Amino acid sequence: METIDTLIHARWVIPIEPDGVVLEHHSIAIHDGRIVAVVPHAEARAHYRAEAVHQLEQHALIPGLINTHTHAAMTLMRGLADDLPLMTWLQEHIWPAEQQWVNEEFVHDGTQLAMAEMLRGGTTYFNDMYYFPDVSARAASAAGMRSTVGLIVLDFPTAWASNSDEYLSKGLELYDQYRNDPLIRTAFAPHAPYTVSDEPLSRIQTYVNELEIPVHMHVHETAGEVQQCVAERGVRPLQRLDQLGLISPTLLAVHMTQLIDGEIDLVALRGAHVVHCPESNLKLASGFCPVQRLLDAGINVALGTDGAASNNDLDMFGEMRSAAMLAKAVAGDAGALPAMQALRMATLNGAKALGIDELVGSLLPGKAADVVAVDLSSIETQPLYHPVSQLIYACGRDKVSDVWINGQQVLNGRRLTTLDENAVLARAQDWQGRIRRHS
Amino acid sequence: METIDTLIHARWVIPIEPDGVVLEHHSIAIHDGRIVAVVPHAEARAHYRAEAVHQLEQHALIPGLINTHTHAAMTLMRGLADDLPLMTWLQEHIWPAEQQWVNEEFVHDGTQLAMAEMLRGGTTYFNDMYYFPDVSARAASAAGMRSTVGLIVLDFPTAWASNSDEYLSKGLELYDQYRNDPLIRTAFAPHAPYTVSDEPLSRIQTYVNELEIPVHMHVHETAGEVQQCVAERGVRPLQRLDQLGLISPTLLAVHMTQLIDGEIDLVALRGAHVVHCPESNLKLASGFCPVQRLLDAGINVALGTDGAASNNDLDMFGEMRSAAMLAKAVAGDAGALPAMQALRMATLNGAKALGIDELVGSLLPGKAADVVAVDLSSIETQPLYHPVSQLIYACGRDKVSDVWINGQQVLNGRRLTTLDENAVLARAQDWQGRIRRHS
Repeated sequence: METIDTLIHARWVIPIEPDGVVLEHHSIAIHDGRIVAVVPHAEARAHYRAEAVHQLEQHALIPGLINTHTHAAMTLMRGLADDLPLMTWLQEHIWPAEQQWVNEEFVHDGTQLAMAEMLRGGTTYFNDMYYFPDVSARAASAAGMRSTVGLIVLDFPTAWASNSDEYLSKGLELYDQYRNDPLIRTAFAPHAPYTVSDEPLSRIQTYVNELEIPVHMHVHETAGEVQQCVAERGVRPLQRLDQLGLISPTLLAVHMTQLIDGEIDLVALRGAHVVHCPESNLKLASGFCPVQRLLDAGINVALGTDGAASNNDLDMFGEMRSAAMLAKAVAGDAGALPAMQALRMATLNGAKALGIDELVGSLLPGKAADVVAVDLSSIETQPLYHPVSQLIYACGRDKVSDVWINGQQVLNGRRLTTLDENAVLARAQDWQGRIRRHS
Repeated sequence: METIDTLIHARWVIPIEPDGVVLEHHSIAIHDGRIVAVVPHAEARAHYRAEAVHQLEQHALIPGLINTHTHAAMTLMRGLADDLPLMTWLQEHIWPAEQQWVNEEFVHDGTQLAMAEMLRGGTTYFNDMYYFPDVSARAASAAGMRSTVGLIVLDFPTAWASNSDEYLSKGLELYDQYRNDPLIRTAFAPHAPYTVSDEPLSRIQTYVNELEIPVHMHVHETAGEVQQCVAERGVRPLQRLDQLGLISPTLLAVHMTQLIDGEIDLVALRGAHVVHCPESNLKLASGFCPVQRLLDAGINVALGTDGAASNNDLDMFGEMRSAAMLAKAVAGDAGALPAMQALRMATLNGAKALGIDELVGSLLPGKAADVVAVDLSSIETQPLYHPVSQLIYACGRDKVSDVWINGQQVLNGRRLTTLDENAVLARAQDWQGRIRRHS
């Protein structure tokens, strides 16, 4: 008998690797933050004595969901301005509100609120882009949550930095600080082609070649920004980014709703990753990302919620469902993006895009124990013929019962263990009072 | 002081009529199944003494949601066959399974499961189309739930009837039985243009002119059925139905994803209603219903989930959210179908389509007390700037706490009061075992 930290017996385990497998009556053995084994119940009981044993007889275990594009702190502006196009929403509502309110306290409180929501919905890792990434990194680390914090770069001044030099130098400092952290990673996050000029983009690519961290960027989100680039520079944004050397295996191109012939081939050829945000694209009427065509071209497609100010939640279950359903209608093929592939996009594909698939994204022995338990026993998910179908097409995030990150249980029977839910809510309501009075 | 049955004090009341209104710190007074008053807390406390008083200080009250198109009993086949186009799904999976399994017991157990799901999600009324409508009517009545049961008509034999004469005669019998029922209504439900021939359709229209009950029909769901009709008859299905006199204010045309110039004008001119099922249309890759164009033409558009075998849930919160988001992308306008209009589609517009808007669909004094309380205090719905934005864009159906139908509390703190949840689940699992062994 081997003594380990945690043993979770579950009705189903969906490891994502190998592809397509659903294990029944299996257990996950966890020690020192890592998955030691994924084996049948009887074998687990015969081999392991665990400090903590969980009997989840009506649950499916899946890898922690990876929200590959969000702006966590913006959760404090959830529902502040709806039913508006992207540029009106940004220029007349969000940017003025950010100019007035964003500071370290805002980012701390907003990131905590976002993490509370994400953990309660089975998300264990978020790829973030926002101001004061040092604050969100500290908040994530304190909550035991994984994050790739974006080293944001813009041409214009904000409360975080006054010009691209300062954005970059502050970013590089943060990169150094977290380069060996167990939970926090960093990525360059030039906001978008229309907000960052050539010089800082070239410098970023130079650093990327040296540091080998990802580049996280909004690309071809709307038709308007593509037209503007063509009018001003005579090329489409993807062409411009390629000329600058940014279309590479380190790029996470977010949104990508505007793609013409040749651009999908270019992205595939360069090995760049696409982050699909179906609900944000719908709600802001940005356009339809041709997900099935991207997958058919061999491109790695991950999933993100975008910020809760646009979307208006951080619900990866909702995003998987929307992605699977929308891809079918856009492709005109009900066989497009089947349920298992949607789950893979929200887990392993996100890990691949972020360059951390050796650590997370599937339930393989040796990987970190980032595990989510979903209770499939209630009215909404019965009868049950295929657990993965249930997870994608019938399940709400409210069915997530327990979450482990790096072996630590961060959600226990729907109770958060590393965040004080009442304190997080109190601070959200305090911000609501301040922001509402001035908006 | 007037003595009444029930007084509900809520943080917000969204009555739907008058349009756009959000009442703060209001109460709903209920007596003998009807809404007596919607007034501020202080006024309510001064005027009414109630048998039951509910303090819902963090909740919004909305009218009961009306699921204007479903096949309730099919919930027993939830997730049986996914990621397939409509005709493959119907002809190779659903119709064979129905032929083998559908009987009175199946319809009873499936309808109870569906109602348990719908009540837990704030749906108080469902417009149903399925076999053995007598059984579903009895089940709904026993559960205290409202339903318009469809008097289904098909050309081909099923366990319910062997030919159109028998479908119609059994339907008319049911119409007679329920003509004065407080909860149950009936509608003719010829399945679709491609499954019902001219003669029964003409007879249905003759009866409709006399009985003035609705006609509930799948219309222009897929491109294939339209092409088939053109090939076989030289006209599109809508033309054929118009020639038969069916396009009228009594028609609920469900799906309507395939519309060419002139067809929207025709539907508007005839005063027919459209039932939009956004998630079913996406998942089966049926096409995009041009919702904003229908609304702009003055057509009354209601919302339905479709059956859980295709969709795979009966979640009207999800359907409102999908409808609001998808309409924006389809119209290319982020201002299309704003949140308040989505809520209206799921309540008053459904009531109008079914010809019962004098009774339900809004929280006006004199109407039936079909009321849903939604708790907006948790992490997922905070901060809160606009309650309707929260209901549509951030809220899950799990936030529904309490439901009243005709003044009777059918959901109390998320517990069903008229259905035995464990018994319903046990029967669903029993059917799962039978169906799985043979599929």
